[in-house]
Order: sequence, then C-alpha cells, then structure tokens
Amino acid sequence: MSVSDIKRLAVIGCGLIGSSVCRAARAKGAAQTIVVYDASPEVRERVRALGMADEVADDPVAAVTGADLVIFAAPPAAIGPAAEACARGFMPGAIISDVGSVKGAIGDAMAAAAPPGVFVVPGHPIAGTEQSGPEAGFAELFEGRWTILCPRPSEDAGYPVAVARLSAFWRALGAQVELMDAAHHDRVLAVTSHLPHLIAYNIVGTAADLEEVAEGEVMKYSAGGFRDFTRIAASDPVMWRDVFLLNKDAVLEVLGRFTEDLQALSRAIRWGEGDKLEALFTRTRAIRRGVIAAGQESAEPNFGRNRKPS
Amino acid sequence: MSVSDIKRLAVIGCGLIGSSVCRAARAKGAAQTIVVYDASPEVRERVRALGMADEVADDPVAAVTGADLVIFAAPPAAIGPAAEACARGFMPGAIISDVGSVKGAIGDAMAAAAPPGVFVVPGHPIAGTEQSGPEAGFAELFEGRWTILCPRPSEDAGYPVAVARLSAFWRALGAQVELMDAAHHDRVLAVTSHLPHLIAYNIVGTAADLEEVAEGEVMKYSAGGFRDFTRIAASDPVMWRDVFLLNKDAVLEVLGRFTEDLQALSRAIRWGEGDKLEALFTRTRAIRRGVIAAGQESAEPNFGRNRKPS
Repeated sequence: MSVSDIKRLAVIGCGLIGSSVCRAARAKGAAQTIVVYDASPEVRERVRALGMADEVADDPVAAVTGADLVIFAAPPAAIGPAAEACARGFMPGAIISDVGSVKGAIGDAMAAAAPPGVFVVPGHPIAGTEQSGPEAGFAELFEGRWTILCPRPSEDAGYPVAVARLSAFWRALGAQVELMDAAHHDRVLAVTSHLPHLIAYNIVGTAADLEEVAEGEVMKYSAGGFRDFTRIAASDPVMWRDVFLLNKDAVLEVLGRFTEDLQALSRAIRWGEGDKLEALFTRTRAIRRGVIAAGQESAEPNFGRNRKPS
Repeated sequence: MSVSDIKRLAVIGCGLIGSSVCRAARAKGAAQTIVVYDASPEVRERVRALGMADEVADDPVAAVTGADLVIFAAPPAAIGPAAEACARGFMPGAIISDVGSVKGAIGDAMAAAAPPGVFVVPGHPIAGTEQSGPEAGFAELFEGRWTILCPRPSEDAGYPVAVARLSAFWRALGAQVELMDAAHHDRVLAVTSHLPHLIAYNIVGTAADLEEVAEGEVMKYSAGGFRDFTRIAASDPVMWRDVFLLNKDAVLEVLGRFTEDLQALSRAIRWGEGDKLEALFTRTRAIRRGVIAAGQESAEPNFGRNRKPS
C-alpha cells in the first residue's frame, strides 16, 4: 500500500461515498485531519453523531481552508456550485477532486470554479451500494475497486505531482488507480454503469405498471431474475438523475445501440429464429467468463459491489 | 415439512434442475427410488459417476416404467418429444410433471403425449443458477423458493389427489407451492424472469459490439452495474432460446411495454426533464422495499438464487 501525504482532507458532501472516503481515510491513516461539510444541516448533525470526521464545518469555505486535498462527494450536478461556494477558501497548491460518475461535465465545472494555483484532478471510484446517506458508508468500500482519475491538460510542473499525490491517496484507501481521458471515461461508464442502471430503472417501472400482473406477484416471484434489477433500481434517485443529464450524449448513444439490438432480438423471437437467439446467448455466456477472468467476480455474488459488513 | 409418498421417481433430463431434484429428493427422502434418463449418453455416464440416482436408464421407456412420478427436466422445447418417447412406459395413475419456465405450451405438449389414465400436472420451480449440467445441481436449490403448479381442467376425481401428491413432493424438497392458471403463470414469468433475461442478454451483446469501448475495458470496469447483467446473461443458451420461442406472445407483449417506457425515458434525458427521471427513480426505489418485504431478499445478495455451497 503506497503512503499518502495528505495533511488536511476536506470532504464536501457526506453521503454513502463521502462518508466512506472519511472512514477509509481514517482507517488507513491516509489523511492527518478529516473535515466534512454537507449542505444539509441535518446531515452535518448525523455526521457529527457518527464521529467519522475530526471536524464538521457549518460553512463550506471554512471546511476547505487549509485543506491540501478537497474531495467533492455531492450529487453530480451539485459539485460545480459547491466548488464555487468553496473557491474562496481553496489553498494555493491544493488538489481539488471529486467522486462523480461523470467526468467531462463535472471536471469542467470544477475547473471553472477553481482559482489559479490549485490543481483540479477529477476522479471516480467505481464502487457503491444501493444504500444512501452517511450511515451507509464503510471503510472497505474501495478495497480492490478501481478509481479512475482524469487529469486535465496542464503545463504546470506541479500538476503531475498533484496527480501522483491523489493516486497515492486512493491506493492508500485500498483502490487500484487508472488514469483516463475524461471523454473516454464517460463513454466507458455509459456502457458499464449508466446504461445498466437506466435499464434496471426502466424494467422495474414497466413491471409496476402492468395491469394484468399484480405488483405483489412481481415481488413474490422476483427470484427468476427480476430481483437483481430491483437492487440496481434502488440506487440514489438524485445522483442518477444528474448522471443521465450530465452524460446525456454518451448515454443516448449507447441506449440507441441497445434499442437497435433489442429490436433485432424482438424480431428474431417473433419470427421464431431460434438459431439467432442461441448464437447470441452462447456468446454472452462466453463474455461472462471474461468478467470472471478480469477479476471482477468475487467469491460470493455481490452485484459488483463491496458490501457493508453486517 | 409435509411427507411425500412417492415410491419411484423418474427424472427425464438431468442438468442443473434435474440433478437438483434428484439430490434434494434423496436428501429429504422424498422418493424411495430415483431413476434418471438423459438423452445424452455422455451425461448419463456423468450422472452414474456422480451417483445421485439409484438407477440411470439407457432407455426412456424403461426409465418411466413403474414410476408414480415422472418429472421432465429437459430444455423446454425438448419436453414434448421426450414425453412422447416415454409415453408407452407411463404407469396408469402416474403423475406426469416438468420444471419448464413456460407452462402453457409445455403443458399442452405433455398432455398431447400422455395416454388416458395418467395425471399431467405442469410445474415450475422458480430457482436456478447461471450454471448448467448435472455437476451444477445441489440439494438446497429449492429451499424456501416457490414452485408453481398449473393444474389442467379435469373431471377425474383422482386429479386433485395427484396435484396434492405433487405439492407434497415439492414441499418435501423445501419449496413453497402455489397453484396458478398456466396462462397467468406465463404472463407473470414473462415479467419477473423472461424479460429480465432477454434484457441482460441484449445489453451484454450490445456492450461487446461497441467499437469505441474495448471489451477488456467493459470487463475491467463492470463493477459499476454491468457485471450483474453478465451473470444473468450466462444462463443456459438452449433453455432460454426455448423459453422465448414457447412464451413468444407474453414476452413480446411485455417487451413492447418495456420499449415504450424506455423511449419515454430516453426522451426525458434528451430534453433534460430531470423531474421525470427523479420521479421514476424514486418510485423504483420504493418497489425494491416491496421485494424485501416480500421476503425475496436474503441476508447476502444472491441474485434471487440459492447458491451451491462452496
């Protein structure tokens, strides 16, 4: 595990991810001091009660003052405004990062808010659960998961150093770090995360609207496959609303491809083309082996997510 | 646990489900003698080696001769032909059932093959894993899961008795039993199982065909949601090909509804209607609680499936 040299960590927005960053940073000693700010006074109270931070500030500027690493963990669309609200307090040389699932739009928003002399390095830990709120976080959330950092073009000699420090911080939290272009990140995640969530939200909504099948029956017999989707479709509504709006182009593009393929599949069923169906299903089964080979499968099924120890 | 009075159980087709029926029946003493037949000589050899049955017949008629319960566990489209191949051996008063995911078409096929004097009672245990083959089965697969029986119209006084005996057999295996009209079963499962599998197969195929995102990247970052779909899309290709062809009408109907809703969702994203997105996502999150309340969620995530003890 590489060593983090962060003295003062400010986490802005303290839900599932923000609180997990705090817990992991404290558990791994990845930051000397941890300060939290959340726009909700009620959430700040809960964070104080949970005692996961050294300080809980009631003012965003006070929270980031003196912090050498600021991580915005608010809902995607709230990160830009939050960065603006904090900007006056940013310390020269501070690393400004986030945990949003969309990197292009959020990176631009943070960069627009940041004064000269700070280093904006957008980031995204690919980890989570369907739970929300500071109580849902846990220190092991990032263990063995990927955190993607999307460095922005910079001629400042200090920038690569800031990227290296942020990488070391995430590795200290147990994550594997990958550097990627923001636009490519947004295309990759549109496929591996955004579309799957959109599909899950949609199928659960469709099932609930059927007249001929009662919602109770859908629940009762959900073990046949549907149940897997209800877990994904239980993810944070505000966060996902923002993700689809901020990554609109990439999401609509892969959604178009998905719909096209689904229509071909639908046609194959209507015309009884069993060979086409079997060929696709055989191929997707092989792809599953690739997921296991890529080490993205763990001993017990966990929906690709580290689970909170119960 | 209710007592089963089955003397000789014949399981025709011995993959994941068939072998689990054998193992569970033996573990729970739900049948005095268990005989297996599988159309594949190679599978018959493996079943002999696994020693999960008292007899492994090389001839379908010999397998069912003298059996008071015959359960067809072949791929859905193979059950009708298998029943025809066995019909000469059916004992008067025998219960003829199956485990197929589609009940209308399979029930009709079994009834067409069955001679007078036997009782055709189609059945469907809602349990499984993405694994296939006799080695993948395990005795606990049906524990706490639902098995739906779809009795057919009959004026024979012995028919209700046959249904009661089959119910007792499944309860002995650990399942909860529900009686349902076959057409309704096919509509319910089209929503809770068939559509989810179709969607999972489709999204995994779409992801594999994208030019701008490498398949390796899809695997590597699959923890964001995609991975959940790869497990479902690893289910048996032949079985699922048959399910979609045999339950075509119900599947195409719910697929039509799903596509309609997806287009509305796509439009909401394109036009930035965040309120519509948030409203749907909030609603689906509530539905998740219904699944948990319906007792379809277990302590650790298991994709709605009992897992083979490792």
